[in-house]
Amino acid sequence: MSNFINNHPKREKFQRIGLMGRAGKSSVTDTLNQLIALLMARGLSVVIDTETAAIDGILIDFDEVDGNQLKIVPRHRIGEHCDFAVVVGGDGSMLQAASVLAGTNVPVLGINRGRLGFLADVNPDELEEKISQVLDGDYWLAERFLVKFQIVQNDEQGNLTDQVLHEDVALNDVVLHAGKSVHTIDFTLRINDMDVYRLHADGLIIATPTGSTAYSLSAGGPIIHPTIDAISLVPMHPHTLSSRPLVVAGSSRIAINVHKDNRTQPMVGADGKASAPLDNDHTLIVTKHDKTLLLLHPPSFNFYKACRTKLHWSAFSEEFALEGDKDK
Amino acid sequence: MSNFINNHPKREKFQRIGLMGRAGKSSVTDTLNQLIALLMARGLSVVIDTETAAIDGILIDFDEVDGNQLKIVPRHRIGEHCDFAVVVGGDGSMLQAASVLAGTNVPVLGINRGRLGFLADVNPDELEEKISQVLDGDYWLAERFLVKFQIVQNDEQGNLTDQVLHEDVALNDVVLHAGKSVHTIDFTLRINDMDVYRLHADGLIIATPTGSTAYSLSAGGPIIHPTIDAISLVPMHPHTLSSRPLVVAGSSRIAINVHKDNRTQPMVGADGKASAPLDNDHTLIVTKHDKTLLLLHPPSFNFYKACRTKLHWSAFSEEFALEGDKDK
Amino acid sequence: MSNFINNHPKREKFQRIGLMGRAGKSSVTDTLNQLIALLMARGLSVVIDTETAAIDGILIDFDEVDGNQLKIVPRHRIGEHCDFAVVVGGDGSMLQAASVLAGTNVPVLGINRGRLGFLADVNPDELEEKISQVLDGDYWLAERFLVKFQIVQNDEQGNLTDQVLHEDVALNDVVLHAGKSVHTIDFTLRINDMDVYRLHADGLIIATPTGSTAYSLSAGGPIIHPTIDAISLVPMHPHTLSSRPLVVAGSSRIAINVHKDNRTQPMVGADGKASAPLDNDHTLIVTKHDKTLLLLHPPSFNFYKACRTKLHWSAFSEEFALEGDKDK
Amino acid sequence: MSNFINNHPKREKFQRIGLMGRAGKSSVTDTLNQLIALLMARGLSVVIDTETAAIDGILIDFDEVDGNQLKIVPRHRIGEHCDFAVVVGGDGSMLQAASVLAGTNVPVLGINRGRLGFLADVNPDELEEKISQVLDGDYWLAERFLVKFQIVQNDEQGNLTDQVLHEDVALNDVVLHAGKSVHTIDFTLRINDMDVYRLHADGLIIATPTGSTAYSLSAGGPIIHPTIDAISLVPMHPHTLSSRPLVVAGSSRIAINVHKDNRTQPMVGADGKASAPLDNDHTLIVTKHDKTLLLLHPPSFNFYKACRTKLHWSAFSEEFALEGDKDK
Repeated sequence: MSNFINNHPKREKFQRIGLMGRAGKSSVTDTLNQLIALLMARGLSVVIDTETAAIDGILIDFDEVDGNQLKIVPRHRIGEHCDFAVVVGGDGSMLQAASVLAGTNVPVLGINRGRLGFLADVNPDELEEKISQVLDGDYWLAERFLVKFQIVQNDEQGNLTDQVLHEDVALNDVVLHAGKSVHTIDFTLRINDMDVYRLHADGLIIATPTGSTAYSLSAGGPIIHPTIDAISLVPMHPHTLSSRPLVVAGSSRIAINVHKDNRTQPMVGADGKASAPLDNDHTLIVTKHDKTLLLLHPPSFNFYKACRTKLHWSAFSEEFALEGDKDK
Repeated sequence: MSNFINNHPKREKFQRIGLMGRAGKSSVTDTLNQLIALLMARGLSVVIDTETAAIDGILIDFDEVDGNQLKIVPRHRIGEHCDFAVVVGGDGSMLQAASVLAGTNVPVLGINRGRLGFLADVNPDELEEKISQVLDGDYWLAERFLVKFQIVQNDEQGNLTDQVLHEDVALNDVVLHAGKSVHTIDFTLRINDMDVYRLHADGLIIATPTGSTAYSLSAGGPIIHPTIDAISLVPMHPHTLSSRPLVVAGSSRIAINVHKDNRTQPMVGADGKASAPLDNDHTLIVTKHDKTLLLLHPPSFNFYKACRTKLHWSAFSEEFALEGDKDK
Repeated sequence: MSNFINNHPKREKFQRIGLMGRAGKSSVTDTLNQLIALLMARGLSVVIDTETAAIDGILIDFDEVDGNQLKIVPRHRIGEHCDFAVVVGGDGSMLQAASVLAGTNVPVLGINRGRLGFLADVNPDELEEKISQVLDGDYWLAERFLVKFQIVQNDEQGNLTDQVLHEDVALNDVVLHAGKSVHTIDFTLRINDMDVYRLHADGLIIATPTGSTAYSLSAGGPIIHPTIDAISLVPMHPHTLSSRPLVVAGSSRIAINVHKDNRTQPMVGADGKASAPLDNDHTLIVTKHDKTLLLLHPPSFNFYKACRTKLHWSAFSEEFALEGDKDK
Repeated sequence: MSNFINNHPKREKFQRIGLMGRAGKSSVTDTLNQLIALLMARGLSVVIDTETAAIDGILIDFDEVDGNQLKIVPRHRIGEHCDFAVVVGGDGSMLQAASVLAGTNVPVLGINRGRLGFLADVNPDELEEKISQVLDGDYWLAERFLVKFQIVQNDEQGNLTDQVLHEDVALNDVVLHAGKSVHTIDFTLRINDMDVYRLHADGLIIATPTGSTAYSLSAGGPIIHPTIDAISLVPMHPHTLSSRPLVVAGSSRIAINVHKDNRTQPMVGADGKASAPLDNDHTLIVTKHDKTLLLLHPPSFNFYKACRTKLHWSAFSEEFALEGDKDK
């Protein structure tokens, strides 16, 4: 796979801009309205998904809809109707957008209206400046890989059958967990058909580099630069005190079986979406997904600066902030 | 409080021995039967709780019951009928025994039939030797303190009312958690009416020294010697990357409020027992319980040796094991 | 031991104020001069140690010295001549002051002119306000215990002799280390004559609660409230991956022996002062010192607020700072 | 770069076997003598470096030397005279061998006579079996990349000059450190000319995947599978409590400058070899080396099994060992 971060100063400019936002937060609605006005004023086509169009307070002149400038489409088809998408919300909204835009080649940019925000990396107060730069063709593109999980039925000998009971895709992480807080599960991990370990823990986080700054980080996982083709495996509260985060090749085939003596129902979820049960006659298979997501960053973006800001590294060295932090 | 570890080589010998065991494991039943025979043979009174007496396979001559040698009593009243209690199971069984024996002055010893085992520290294969030593009056007593939690209703100004909605007692830990795995909650911690921090995390473990080698340890908490009068506060997967385990005085009054923007129902549980909901108009208060538990250890017991064995410290220095590990 | 934190709003007021400062930093000199003027203006006696008096730029009218208002004394005797001491510098200066003031009953307050500063907790810009409060009798006193280390010669059987080769006292920590960076040593730890572990590591930090927010914290040790009578043992880069910080009773007798196969000369130091060699026919003994240090804090002091500020806990929850942080 | 692990069951068999050993340990000498006998008996050429030939007790018939079967050559030229090298010692001996064999295309296998041993992965008691398999052409080859560091003189504007003051190569890690134990240094990290962070710490470990199971692991770094093209940056006892291990692309250009206020002389070393000073008018540059090392493993080798064994993961789940551990 060729992850890349490329600047396209002369790239052909976007004409049809998709907009998605999270309902229920007035600040999101304000930012969406600001964006609609800005795009309309530049004479660009605006494509809104039905969920976003239904947000209370959104300023759409529905008489104009389906004309050249304004289109409303189902969320899962937005990728067919735009050549660039903007998401207003937090990292959670970006994860949802990822599931409809992965594989479409439509790049997505996030305006941060939530907490943290490694994915939604434009602040609302710099919206006009950053969006203008992007529309002028000045931006970075970064391809991010996703992981796919499958829950497969085993036969009586414990071998995999063809029956896939559940599957889902994650930009950040697939998490195996105990279903209930403060409960542990017992499971075995194999990679490329080699035994790795048997573990008793609250669960296991299987994170992409994109996810390495999300849940994985709070569990003691390393920060992995987004261009690296690797997957990290981070145990949650492991009883094996010598267990450590493990970083394996992106091409690895990760297989997990839970043991029959678990007192709770082990579950598996992707990016915090609804989880599916993993029984002891199932096998959880996690591999790289065949589709990628294109993230779009304004020209000032810098992964390490994002780390410094979000993780407050600079707060610990106030007197001697780095150049790059001066304008933060 | 005066936690202590004292050896009583000449202590008055026990006459009435309580027995409790966990149902559903044949190895537990075997050990219970071995104990009954051993105690009977020594002419001692055996007191069994009703739940243990109901275990399938337990060898009790019910004709003898209520005579001088064999008595069956409700579990919660076992402390009134014996002067020493033996629990067969794992640390979970010991935690259950703690809730009926705390404050009774009846010491308890655990026979390990589960995993790990900091509380149940006698192995079944050394049962006869160790129990004989104890019955001969050669043993250690260790007083362990418990913590109590209360969920209190706040009034409209956010002050505490007299209304206690739920309370429970823990030997190991009180855990505040998100109710669901892989969800975070947002809460504020105060100690003795001083603000400590506001945290976004999977939860918080409030552990006694006894609990410092249990769940707390898997979350990165320190090992605290059982004689120390302190409580440790260990965040679970905190988003605040500079947060650290905090050890406060045993006399501290710990108060926690959850915030209203939580997406799940925060819950509080003691020692892994059923949890109770903590709403944003409640306050969670954790303080030291006024009753203590007496643990009884065979003469060979040594806290640090238990750490070495359970945490496999010796495995990392095979070639040069300590004297104390030779007979492990 | 009775560690305590007491507020003395009506305490008898200080008359003779000792001043100590670190040479070589103009900001320290400025603050010292500001203090001298402030104290003189209030008609109080000022006692300066010879090292501080020798600082270039210090504004002392040497004609006035040895009169009633101004006295110069050797640093190690400053405790005899004052009833309250102020130290200007960083935590390092406070550690030095601790070694001359421990056991004197003279409380000490630190004005922070360095980094971090858990001990030197008054900022120069609030100097006038805070010092005035203190001189008006409004302050907290906190007794902090110290630890003592001794390097003792063993006899040929490995037993301790009476020969003490080196001893020193620490307010923060005694550190056993490899002498050289990036080298490991192999040593055995015993507590109260019980084997604890054999470890292969860069070293071991033996910290007081006061030291728990210093070097120990960077090595993964817990934060221990200053009132707790405990000592923490924190391995530095241990090879035994299951080793964890261990908190033991303040009354513990900690004994360490290094093994003969070490490739470097193991060393022991207190509070970052000069280290002494620990050979394999020596035993390192660490115990609580019989003298304590009295810290004096302005009335606004709060240990948890200090944690929040120094460790930047609040930076991670900007939008929702605690009340107590508003004036930070 | 194409790291790979390939099995070569039909590979052309080795004819000239190089032998290197660490002096001063009789067990090493015994194993070397066993190897010489075994290789001679198979009619193979044995090539010994001068340092190994000088070991007291080594059984070489010096009359035979320089004939077809036995050759003695300088260590740094051993790669020219053999097509396969065996090293007897510990990981330290393997690191030394790496510096003479990197770039030669001569694969190296290690017989473990030290502690741990991720590189020297054959135990002496299985020597005959494993060596025979290898000589029969049944083995794995794994290419491991090395990192190079350069200390470059800056000009007065702080830009790099052409003057390289020191350079060295590491298989495991380049370590920046304070020169003295228990001292911190203050430095700035840049990657590909982007500011990353300014840190106050005992130092920084810059580790290859090979080195991720060595010193880096004891400092909290992740385990990185040897096939991943990445470098990990692991702070040693950082004062910035929110700093975390960072994994960057193998192609990264890592640049470090130390600040002028450091109280000790910052030093840089590779693989534990002698360190060189890094002044504040120098820049430390770390990049991937252009030469690689070929490791040779017996057919039973499995990276994850090595982790399980060396890190004692299995000790924590005794009752339910994995299949792969049965024969450990």
